[in-house]
Order: sequence, then structure tokens, then C-alpha cells
Amino acid sequence: MRERQLNSILSELNGSSADIQASAVISTDGLILTSLLPTTLDEDRVGAMAAAMLSLGERTSEEFGRGGLDQVLVKGVEGYILMASAGLNTLLTVVTKSTAKLGMIFFEVKIAADSIRKINIV
Amino acid sequence: MRERQLNSILSELNGSSADIQASAVISTDGLILTSLLPTTLDEDRVGAMAAAMLSLGERTSEEFGRGGLDQVLVKGVEGYILMASAGLNTLLTVVTKSTAKLGMIFFEVKIAADSIRKINIV
Repeated sequence: MRERQLNSILSELNGSSADIQASAVISTDGLILTSLLPTTLDEDRVGAMAAAMLSLGERTSEEFGRGGLDQVLVKGVEGYILMASAGLNTLLTVVTKSTAKLGMIFFEVKIAADSIRKINIV
Repeated sequence: MRERQLNSILSELNGSSADIQASAVISTDGLILTSLLPTTLDEDRVGAMAAAMLSLGERTSEEFGRGGLDQVLVKGVEGYILMASAGLNTLLTVVTKSTAKLGMIFFEVKIAADSIRKINIV
């Protein structure tokens, strides 16, 4: 039931922009909870990297006096990877094309992360 | 001489926007080369965290099929930290307020990173 709800949130997120190519809900220890990833990506490695980035991002934000972490963005030559906390022990990762409008992606990811947070609370 | 050039680039960068509060040029092993940081920040820890973020960002970009790394952004509740490669074994870090206009910051950081890259090549 919860998996179906998470899948529905990811479907809606991926459908919100043609620039969003993949998304996944991941536990903070790097395990995939549910995902809409292309088969070219290795789920185990993607989960581990995203969890590590968010964890290091939290420490970096504190160390630089920027308070609690909101999101981490990796800007690659061929697109973006965005990671956001989505409640206790849970994070959301989104992969986009390089043509993505960042403002819109930040916005859509925030909405999806809030929805995931609500499911986890229940 | 090179330190003076780097300092001049950082001064220009910090002066380009009232939202930029600090900047530093750091080696990829986490040592500060030159910085304009507030005294509230611990240089050693800031250098180590920024270098670790950029290194993990490079691996994440590859793992997610986004090609070479351009920049890493940490969005905290109280502002942004941006890290960009600035040539061989060198990175640039910028710390901004939460009111910063991200598009402008990306642009200014790119210009500064390119200038630092040129100094390193010489």
C-alpha cells in the first residue's frame, strides 16, 4: 500500500516535466525503497551515492553555518541530480536533463518530498 | 604573486553580489589556498568538507550518467554553499545568504573558476 503510494508520487513527479528522467525514494542507509530509474543505472550504487551525498551535505551545511539541509544539487555536464530529505530516514532523488529549468525542478521536488514525508508519518 | 592574483579574484567575486558572504580557493585534498572567510568558520574543517563534497559529487555525476562534474550546490535553510572545480587539483567554494539569486551566483562562480583555472595553467 505504502509502496503504491510512493510509486504514484514518483509517477506524478516524473510526469511533471519532460526534463525529469528518473527518480527514486531511498533510505538514508542507501537502500532503494521505490524507484523509476532507467535500466542503465545500477540501483544499489545510485542509492548508496545519493545517501552519501545527502549525509555529507547535512554536515557541510552545518559546518558552513547554513543551518539544516534543504537540498543537494549535483550539476553535471549532461544534467542534474537533486537530493532532498523526505522525512525520517528517507530521501528523494531526481535525475534531469541538462535543459531542465532548475527553479521548476526545485519546486516539484519540494512538493513530492512533502508528500512522501506525509506517508512516512502515517 | 599567485596568492595575490587569487585574492584579487575572490575580492571581485565577493564584491559582485551582496549575497555572497565568503569564498575560498581550496586544493582537492582539502587545504585552503586562499580565502575570504568570516572568522566564525573553521578553515581546516571548511576546506575538508568542500573537497569531500566535490569529490563525491564527481563520482555521483558519473554514476548517474550525467558526465563530468560542473558544480555542487548545498541548499541550507540559511543559505547556499556552491563548489566548483577550478582547474587541476583546485576548487572554488562560495557561501551565500538564503536570499541569493542562484542564476547570478552560478554565473559569477563560473567566471571566477575560469579565472583561477587560467592562473593555475600559467
